[in-house]
Amino acid sequence: MMRILVANANTTEAITRLCAEAARAAAAPGTDILPATPRFGPAVISSRAENVIAGHALLELLADHAGQVQAVVLAVSHDTALEAARQLMPCPVVGMTEAACLTACMVGGRFGLLTLGGVETYRELIARHGLSARLSGLEGLAATPQDAVAEPARVEAMVLEGIARLVEGGADAVVLGGAALAGMAARLGPRAPVPLLDGIACAVKLAEALVGLGLPRPRGGSLAPLSGRQSTGLSPALAALLRG
Amino acid sequence: MMRILVANANTTEAITRLCAEAARAAAAPGTDILPATPRFGPAVISSRAENVIAGHALLELLADHAGQVQAVVLAVSHDTALEAARQLMPCPVVGMTEAACLTACMVGGRFGLLTLGGVETYRELIARHGLSARLSGLEGLAATPQDAVAEPARVEAMVLEGIARLVEGGADAVVLGGAALAGMAARLGPRAPVPLLDGIACAVKLAEALVGLGLPRPRGGSLAPLSGRQSTGLSPALAALLRG
Amino acid sequence: MMRILVANANTTEAITRLCAEAARAAAAPGTDILPATPRFGPAVISSRAENVIAGHALLELLADHAGQVQAVVLAVSHDTALEAARQLMPCPVVGMTEAACLTACMVGGRFGLLTLGGVETYRELIARHGLSARLSGLEGLAATPQDAVAEPARVEAMVLEGIARLVEGGADAVVLGGAALAGMAARLGPRAPVPLLDGIACAVKLAEALVGLGLPRPRGGSLAPLSGRQSTGLSPALAALLRG
Amino acid sequence: MMRILVANANTTEAITRLCAEAARAAAAPGTDILPATPRFGPAVISSRAENVIAGHALLELLADHAGQVQAVVLAVSHDTALEAARQLMPCPVVGMTEAACLTACMVGGRFGLLTLGGVETYRELIARHGLSARLSGLEGLAATPQDAVAEPARVEAMVLEGIARLVEGGADAVVLGGAALAGMAARLGPRAPVPLLDGIACAVKLAEALVGLGLPRPRGGSLAPLSGRQSTGLSPALAALLRG
Amino acid sequence: MMRILVANANTTEAITRLCAEAARAAAAPGTDILPATPRFGPAVISSRAENVIAGHALLELLADHAGQVQAVVLAVSHDTALEAARQLMPCPVVGMTEAACLTACMVGGRFGLLTLGGVETYRELIARHGLSARLSGLEGLAATPQDAVAEPARVEAMVLEGIARLVEGGADAVVLGGAALAGMAARLGPRAPVPLLDGIACAVKLAEALVGLGLPRPRGGSLAPLSGRQSTGLSPALAALLRG
Amino acid sequence: MMRILVANANTTEAITRLCAEAARAAAAPGTDILPATPRFGPAVISSRAENVIAGHALLELLADHAGQVQAVVLAVSHDTALEAARQLMPCPVVGMTEAACLTACMVGGRFGLLTLGGVETYRELIARHGLSARLSGLEGLAATPQDAVAEPARVEAMVLEGIARLVEGGADAVVLGGAALAGMAARLGPRAPVPLLDGIACAVKLAEALVGLGLPRPRGGSLAPLSGRQSTGLSPALAALLRG
Repeated sequence: MMRILVANANTTEAITRLCAEAARAAAAPGTDILPATPRFGPAVISSRAENVIAGHALLELLADHAGQVQAVVLAVSHDTALEAARQLMPCPVVGMTEAACLTACMVGGRFGLLTLGGVETYRELIARHGLSARLSGLEGLAATPQDAVAEPARVEAMVLEGIARLVEGGADAVVLGGAALAGMAARLGPRAPVPLLDGIACAVKLAEALVGLGLPRPRGGSLAPLSGRQSTGLSPALAALLRG
Repeated sequence: MMRILVANANTTEAITRLCAEAARAAAAPGTDILPATPRFGPAVISSRAENVIAGHALLELLADHAGQVQAVVLAVSHDTALEAARQLMPCPVVGMTEAACLTACMVGGRFGLLTLGGVETYRELIARHGLSARLSGLEGLAATPQDAVAEPARVEAMVLEGIARLVEGGADAVVLGGAALAGMAARLGPRAPVPLLDGIACAVKLAEALVGLGLPRPRGGSLAPLSGRQSTGLSPALAALLRG
Repeated sequence: MMRILVANANTTEAITRLCAEAARAAAAPGTDILPATPRFGPAVISSRAENVIAGHALLELLADHAGQVQAVVLAVSHDTALEAARQLMPCPVVGMTEAACLTACMVGGRFGLLTLGGVETYRELIARHGLSARLSGLEGLAATPQDAVAEPARVEAMVLEGIARLVEGGADAVVLGGAALAGMAARLGPRAPVPLLDGIACAVKLAEALVGLGLPRPRGGSLAPLSGRQSTGLSPALAALLRG
Repeated sequence: MMRILVANANTTEAITRLCAEAARAAAAPGTDILPATPRFGPAVISSRAENVIAGHALLELLADHAGQVQAVVLAVSHDTALEAARQLMPCPVVGMTEAACLTACMVGGRFGLLTLGGVETYRELIARHGLSARLSGLEGLAATPQDAVAEPARVEAMVLEGIARLVEGGADAVVLGGAALAGMAARLGPRAPVPLLDGIACAVKLAEALVGLGLPRPRGGSLAPLSGRQSTGLSPALAALLRG
Repeated sequence: MMRILVANANTTEAITRLCAEAARAAAAPGTDILPATPRFGPAVISSRAENVIAGHALLELLADHAGQVQAVVLAVSHDTALEAARQLMPCPVVGMTEAACLTACMVGGRFGLLTLGGVETYRELIARHGLSARLSGLEGLAATPQDAVAEPARVEAMVLEGIARLVEGGADAVVLGGAALAGMAARLGPRAPVPLLDGIACAVKLAEALVGLGLPRPRGGSLAPLSGRQSTGLSPALAALLRG
Repeated sequence: MMRILVANANTTEAITRLCAEAARAAAAPGTDILPATPRFGPAVISSRAENVIAGHALLELLADHAGQVQAVVLAVSHDTALEAARQLMPCPVVGMTEAACLTACMVGGRFGLLTLGGVETYRELIARHGLSARLSGLEGLAATPQDAVAEPARVEAMVLEGIARLVEGGADAVVLGGAALAGMAARLGPRAPVPLLDGIACAVKLAEALVGLGLPRPRGGSLAPLSGRQSTGLSPALAALLRG
């Protein structure tokens, strides 16, 4: 029995539930999905400042589960605090956009990314992952998550058009970024010319793969476990992890 | 029940067996490993010319199994013919060094690669995968596969020293490249400061993940399935796949 | 009269004082330096996890001063939460390592960076700033901030040797990274073959330059001001800035 | 008297003749062009799989001529098996797209590439050659080689429009990729705003230049000649070259 | 009292005056602007050849002022001879486009550049500065400097449209390149969605910052001062600087 | 009969003669080498400032020969004013280091560069040519051109050791940079493990190749011929070329 923490980074429970659902749909038999929502932070992350705040909230949330799960999936499309979580936690941690991009690398040459709203922070995220050379383009649709709920057919048509533009621009696969598009990869897949990648699904499968590999925790390198780090005003569990 | 073809690209059965063993050790319960060896080609691939020839041999071998396996692992550290195999086959295909590098991306910041002999073709391979920004360095040990068999303790000591140099140079994980090092990741792991990644093990886990995702085959993009391609002098199965 | 907030990101007042001192030494007549320390977070930032937590602490600290200062200098060598702070605050924000690197670009061809301890997060930081092509190399000395206090002569000798190696490797200037090296640029400058750059000094001068330029705040782009962002459990000032 | 092997990589004799004609038109007096066609493989290369198969066929073809020619031009726009051929053969080997791109580097700042059909494999090829920074853009026309034969005027008009777009996008020269466009560079040159580069012509001139330089064969490095490589099922000449 | 030489690189006095005016508008109280025009060279620089010639003219001009100014601003949008001037002069030297680009890096994520006429040499310039990863795009308007004088309203409208396209393409700031656009940043700023950067203004502020830092001149590295260099036919002052 | 101008960029006739000799040794029968030396400028180019001045001197020299030669070889290892010369002259122009680097690309995977003295400007030059991905490393020997004349055996030994280090670091070919090493490629070739590339020889062969291709001069793009450019104080021939 493997337990994967699916950790949302914003405080909206509905999004946590949506991600948990997607995770359960992707999980192997024998994988238990444990959803969790931070205690504080932004309701939704759509700016750099919210993303920074959510990073702390997410680490606090993770610290509460250290030792109780075999892997963590960060259910936030900005891969918030990913490397920090990796260093902090005694188990594998996978980001949902990271997972979708790495999966895309195994599916074709270059991939595109489509999201609602601005794309620049996604461009930066893919650069941070060192994958810019595999990115064919980004499409930021002029639609909000609310639109996706209110007018699903219209938004789906927009998404399909965006996918077509990305394929025209050289994409062999398309990453759908953002919780608002959760579930859409499965729904639109049959109508798209290339595979659509859902971050949560990819992250769950890669987390299972990492657990299966059973790699030891590093003792050296830039992700060596922390010890003896002092802090003020943090949650007891987080402060304890910093102390090692 | 999932069946994964573990396809060697050289004609040495002993290496096929070694890789099959490593694959079986990594496979999930319910994953069946089917090893296979090409009909023709180089005994061992250690040059660009041999790698090109092996590409054809490998595609012929794969064509013989099209439709009979749920995924393919290319058991050759040069990821020979990887993109071509991906386009040709109706199922996921994963290269062993590709898999180890992508796994390394989920384990730390930058990774190193260690192999016996020259490193330049590995540097080119990682560039081809678009992962150069994640590569901290390469170590090519002055030892042969024969040495690894004849003097395992000496070669293991050399490997550990090479790993130490890579970690000193910024590696958070080390990919062990080449069949001669198969099994060494597991054996030396406890003595290494960072995770050691075995290509076959990583490829099996990622192949299982891809099968689990159940992505549709592309209809467009640069990996759209072939149809109507004419050829001369190829194996019947390979010629049939080209015809679509 | 221009007031610059010099915001430490860790909770150690002594470091805040050290940075404030360096900032005052660099400030133009008429520039007032206002030092500040976060309410919570790590005592010292030396890991990815601490850096994430400090990001939230820093934004909270900045929010408390929004509208009361003409510019902000982030007195933390990881340029923690820099882009987020830039979006959040109604005034220019400059990171100390960012500032030193940009200054280095105006002083020579490529620059090196020297710090105590590990260098990988600095390498990533410079990549995040898009300046990797200007980086000649990094030197991470095997010494602690405590050593720098206890045995200054020995550490200074180590620093000069590290600088020499960086110049040998092609550096036309050397950025000294980390609060532990504050003041050393001025002290060792006369004995170094190339200019040494102190992050706080550079950041103060560039902040003054930005204030002098009087650029309008963006209305569009990825740093457009926030409005209507909801949150839970944040400090009143920070929550108010998110609401716009 | 210099003899250059112009080696097609597909099995279509008509394309071999077309390339030989273009080669003869470009060759210096005293250069003898020897065209050759592989024994097996794809009729035309328009997929990754066909390109891999053609690599083996091409090496077999080259091995049959080793020692009998002073240079080799690979008459295939994918520069199939180029580095392998370079290592295998005792004489200079030049790829036609490589040659056109390197020539373009001597003609202007950035260059564009125009072909019939998809462009992604050309983008990858130029990256493999390390020339991405010199590439301004790619144009893949929605026309087939058959169209080029059946409706030359229409296709020529499309090509000129594509060239105009590439120049608009910053191209100082345009590489015409693919055998279907052979001869078009000369024909359309006077109507194009920038030089058009024909791969075969460029390759012949650069092959002549390399023969003129008389460089020794490497004894070290990643292209050191092969020796003692064992194989199964290869043509006698190819197996012999592997044995050294 | 700080004196900054604002050195035009073409021989058109009117442009020198325009730049001096922009410099004075940006200068701090206590900064004295000294404009200067070369003795020979192109009337306007709009080609690579003119830029090379202007490089010599500019160095001659600078040599005439060595020791008499505390900093130099190169009032030429191609940053002509920038690194050479830096090595030659005993004081800080800042290029106007360099300054605008570095300032843009402190204002947002990626920046765009807009100019009249061709953009390729600006693309190359930004690559030479190592800032390509921060460049979102370039806009070259089909208008001449003469148009900007004759029909300012029409050209301003074109500029605003170009800025909008750049912001659409991901620019968080826009550099206005070329003397013909001097003053436009201030004029159009209020109507633009992101900050507009004027090269002269940015360069003056960064020059003041560098003077304030008081960095020592390098003794080593690639910009170490010259000594003992012999020459023929140069101006006495320039020849003297080469001799050291 | 083809005439190639071999244009030195410094004023030392002895170096012009040395280069002319190397050019004649490489030239095909029927190629006439016309050496030329600038009227003014540095005696030797070993700094950025000298290189800028030499750019003007070189263009003046070239203008004196426009229309009288079929190609130009820039006999200066910094490829001084290369793109400008290309735009200015009505015939092909090739730089000697450019030529050696492009030739190296046809000889192996990555290449190294070895020179006497500093290497940073060569690193920048190779980046300007967009070839950084093909560069394995640079070796700057601690020897002067005078040493090479006074103690040839000692310097040759140093060169061979430097070549060995470059090959160890992944070079498949080594470019010898700088006039002081002219002739050494031929002399040391038999003792080096990889091909040594002499800039003048490579440039002459590539110039012959370009003349043979007979490409038309561009009418558009960033190298379109000049017309109507006004100037002051230039040589009559250079001013005339600017006027078009």
